[in-house]
Amino acid sequence: MNPILRKYEQRVDAIRSLLCIGLDPVTTLIPERFLAAEFPLFEFNKWIIDQTAPYTAAYKPNSAFYEAYGAKGIIQLELTVEYLRSSYPEIITICDAKRGDNSNTNKSYVGSIFDRMNFDCVTLHPYLGQEALAPFLDRRDKVCIILCRTSNPGAAEFQDIRSNGQPLWQTVADQVANKWDVDGNCMLVVGATYPDEMRRIRAIAPNTTFLVPGVGAQGGDITAVVAAGLNADGRGLMISSSREIIYSSEPAAAAAALRNAINAAKEAIHAAR
Amino acid sequence: MNPILRKYEQRVDAIRSLLCIGLDPVTTLIPERFLAAEFPLFEFNKWIIDQTAPYTAAYKPNSAFYEAYGAKGIIQLELTVEYLRSSYPEIITICDAKRGDNSNTNKSYVGSIFDRMNFDCVTLHPYLGQEALAPFLDRRDKVCIILCRTSNPGAAEFQDIRSNGQPLWQTVADQVANKWDVDGNCMLVVGATYPDEMRRIRAIAPNTTFLVPGVGAQGGDITAVVAAGLNADGRGLMISSSREIIYSSEPAAAAAALRNAINAAKEAIHAAR
Repeated sequence: MNPILRKYEQRVDAIRSLLCIGLDPVTTLIPERFLAAEFPLFEFNKWIIDQTAPYTAAYKPNSAFYEAYGAKGIIQLELTVEYLRSSYPEIITICDAKRGDNSNTNKSYVGSIFDRMNFDCVTLHPYLGQEALAPFLDRRDKVCIILCRTSNPGAAEFQDIRSNGQPLWQTVADQVANKWDVDGNCMLVVGATYPDEMRRIRAIAPNTTFLVPGVGAQGGDITAVVAAGLNADGRGLMISSSREIIYSSEPAAAAAALRNAINAAKEAIHAAR
Repeated sequence: MNPILRKYEQRVDAIRSLLCIGLDPVTTLIPERFLAAEFPLFEFNKWIIDQTAPYTAAYKPNSAFYEAYGAKGIIQLELTVEYLRSSYPEIITICDAKRGDNSNTNKSYVGSIFDRMNFDCVTLHPYLGQEALAPFLDRRDKVCIILCRTSNPGAAEFQDIRSNGQPLWQTVADQVANKWDVDGNCMLVVGATYPDEMRRIRAIAPNTTFLVPGVGAQGGDITAVVAAGLNADGRGLMISSSREIIYSSEPAAAAAALRNAINAAKEAIHAAR
């Protein structure tokens, strides 16, 4: 089994949590006391991580929020993943970078995200196909998370285009689960805002773990997500929340509440089955 | 008219060139004399730019090649675009970043690429649709270059999926040219390796400028590209080359030769019409 996905399963079982927290800090939103620090985003992240780690299976910094601060932002992204690896090696790290270029260029992204920063996972665009993404997919020690059905309101514009009776997101799910994932190192992004689609993707990819953005601010419903996406082992989901936790007045309580809400939905489904 | 595309037309006419040079430096490939500098990628870029500028309508650093060196790479990307803006303000700057996230996150990418680094243009993935890309598309002072038909060998996997008789790349071309491009600030990426597709995209989008990667190392043929992609004004193309020019023993001669080959193809087509 892929070492990152094994680590994920162990973590899920150890703390009974499918929760992923998005570390997307913005200087205008973080508490003012962090702003005097040399690395305010990193100090804020450390504070969030230390409080929420007991409830968290994965952390997912989105690269855009660090790139917005130039070189100093990149240093803080590196400090964040280093801190996670040294202090919480049992927790999965995802670089939410949504990359995807030709094969030669992707080697450079592999160098920065997997080797230099040493993230466990990266999010990727499928548009250029398997051949272009090979430098990522060839990394059996890492996990590639391919955009399939995104959570945004306008996702349907291309993702719902139908060919031979099936929408594009279904073709992506099918190709990734049945063709790309020879080394068991692929996951799919499936938005919480589309539970019907998630149910169909679960049927196509019974063993694939889904990264699920879109609960909270974007309106995804926990019960619907868990009912649609849970795999046969009661895992298979990394349910991601960012703003509702990191900008909560009590981040630990917010993380615990979401973890508990996911578990309550799981139990209700088990009871009903 | 969009100020960047106006600048591009003026540049094309002033120097009779449709050439775009990709600034994709790698420390293992650049001449050894640059390696002792504090910022070797930047010093190499400056040397390339100063030699090739007389033949060049646009420069296109690919972000991956800078990210591979962490914060120090980002500083050198910023130095490169600053140098271009101050020394060659008449030349277009393209951040080849192939970004594309949800709308809230894209605001951060707009902040880094358009505002902080002050690039003229950015390359973008279409997969999340117009709604998600709005923060980029809303910038009437900049140009959004949307991936349509990429130059890589495996591009067909999803881009050729047919719906209502047309492939996905055609739907993307159609949506971008006829729906997204209300402010005249969109371009399309159309690979040099697929001239038949380029001809059809030109028919769908007669006024759209194409960024054309894939000549040189990837095997795209100049005459076929010019025949397929030139617009009615004899422009409409930014033909991009990177490795064949920047790692040539004589970069200026290589840039001049490609510029001249493009112009010879244009003249042959004019003569034949």
